[in-house]
Amino acid sequence: MSSPDYAMDIQISFGHCDPAGIVFYPNFFRWFDQCFHNFLRQRAGSHADLCKRLDAQGLGLMDAKAKFLSPATDGDVMTLELRFVEWGERSFTLDYHGRIGDRTVVRGTELRGMFVQRDGRMRAGEMAPLQAALSLAESA
Amino acid sequence: MSSPDYAMDIQISFGHCDPAGIVFYPNFFRWFDQCFHNFLRQRAGSHADLCKRLDAQGLGLMDAKAKFLSPATDGDVMTLELRFVEWGERSFTLDYHGRIGDRTVVRGTELRGMFVQRDGRMRAGEMAPLQAALSLAESA
Amino acid sequence: MSSPDYAMDIQISFGHCDPAGIVFYPNFFRWFDQCFHNFLRQRAGSHADLCKRLDAQGLGLMDAKAKFLSPATDGDVMTLELRFVEWGERSFTLDYHGRIGDRTVVRGTELRGMFVQRDGRMRAGEMAPLQAALSLAESA
Amino acid sequence: MSSPDYAMDIQISFGHCDPAGIVFYPNFFRWFDQCFHNFLRQRAGSHADLCKRLDAQGLGLMDAKAKFLSPATDGDVMTLELRFVEWGERSFTLDYHGRIGDRTVVRGTELRGMFVQRDGRMRAGEMAPLQAALSLAESA
Repeated sequence: MSSPDYAMDIQISFGHCDPAGIVFYPNFFRWFDQCFHNFLRQRAGSHADLCKRLDAQGLGLMDAKAKFLSPATDGDVMTLELRFVEWGERSFTLDYHGRIGDRTVVRGTELRGMFVQRDGRMRAGEMAPLQAALSLAESA
Repeated sequence: MSSPDYAMDIQISFGHCDPAGIVFYPNFFRWFDQCFHNFLRQRAGSHADLCKRLDAQGLGLMDAKAKFLSPATDGDVMTLELRFVEWGERSFTLDYHGRIGDRTVVRGTELRGMFVQRDGRMRAGEMAPLQAALSLAESA
Repeated sequence: MSSPDYAMDIQISFGHCDPAGIVFYPNFFRWFDQCFHNFLRQRAGSHADLCKRLDAQGLGLMDAKAKFLSPATDGDVMTLELRFVEWGERSFTLDYHGRIGDRTVVRGTELRGMFVQRDGRMRAGEMAPLQAALSLAESA
Repeated sequence: MSSPDYAMDIQISFGHCDPAGIVFYPNFFRWFDQCFHNFLRQRAGSHADLCKRLDAQGLGLMDAKAKFLSPATDGDVMTLELRFVEWGERSFTLDYHGRIGDRTVVRGTELRGMFVQRDGRMRAGEMAPLQAALSLAESA
């Protein structure tokens, strides 16, 4: 696998877990979102800054999925890796891989778009300005 | 006790509970907030409408507390009651009482203020316009 | 579409929403899970009862996905419908459809298995006893 | 102030914030709990290990409170400090202090007890064994 565009460690805690003693699954999606925003912050300031620059409302979700391959529990440290895997004309795809040591816990993707207000309607905006903003910041 | 200003039933679910099998306590504060916003919606449209009408940024928290008196678990239905207990000059106090049948689960309070942008600074606004807005809606 | 196996109304609240003013997407997965547990409770007591009866550890997630088709915001009431769509040998698939009036907000699926401890290892158990338990309860 | 018994940094993210753009307050309590469990893990293995050793059900909440002194928003890094402030006969008190640089964001306390099953009833256990377990680990 290619090296990740962003990676973060998550300390799994008691409160992330359900009565079966394993992570309550919606938390994985919260961490996907958090990982994406950390990445964004590193490349382009923050979601708010980026939206202002691109005259956008937000980089919202169109589709999210995850496979839960093995359990994570209180005390585990999960490394979550994000990879930009595809740019569409009006969307982009992020791949997530969460692992505890060598053991894969979760694999998932998010399909996101950039929502813009144009002609009085909310639309999915074109990706070129976003790509430019992220690359520009990257080379800065 | 006086009759509540608002009451709602909360179906406790598996995902609200921690590895000890009881409600993870921050959820009680999420339900306090939800109860307050339901109350607001009933009296004055919504938080957004009310803020627009009063030129305010939000009805934010200054202080919150709760006593956890007995456990709640998957399958319980908790009735949560809200009572307006005090109006200060720049704050108001809400009392919460959560019970499963006759058994009290949680008692808590929120101290909230109305945040307004005045002279380029965020301040705690006066309560009179808020009181009027809530009463007006009440008598409508 | 067939009539749902379970349906619930969700009052969208301020605290479910993000700085863009729309529901923070992991909440939809929390509601999927809650809807499944409500269904279970209606048919077979509770997750804990069912697990005891079937000597299982839990009805855990293997895979979850959702498409976010239109936004939901503070004050909306979303009807969430659950349908059992497929029984595999060691898994089952649930379909979720969330709508505000006639407008679809979210469509998703969960693939779940029944985890059992056998021969000192956690395994995906067979579905026949679960199907029987759910039907038995249904006809009761 | 005395030096903290535990401190952690929290990267505030988009998804922690509400439509007003500031942290949704129940998240602060989730972080209090997480901070306590991190502390425990460092001193005594984990909540589960400690409970096994002390024949306890859990170190649960009896009371929690917080004052929200200034807002935290997407991109902020909040340092959260935990201090053991008092041992009662059947409870203990933790103080929390969250700050962004020198600016205090939140101050709170948790009153916790150790729940034990004795003579067929759930009771608040004595603190001496817990104190010993935490000190033992501390001096190790």
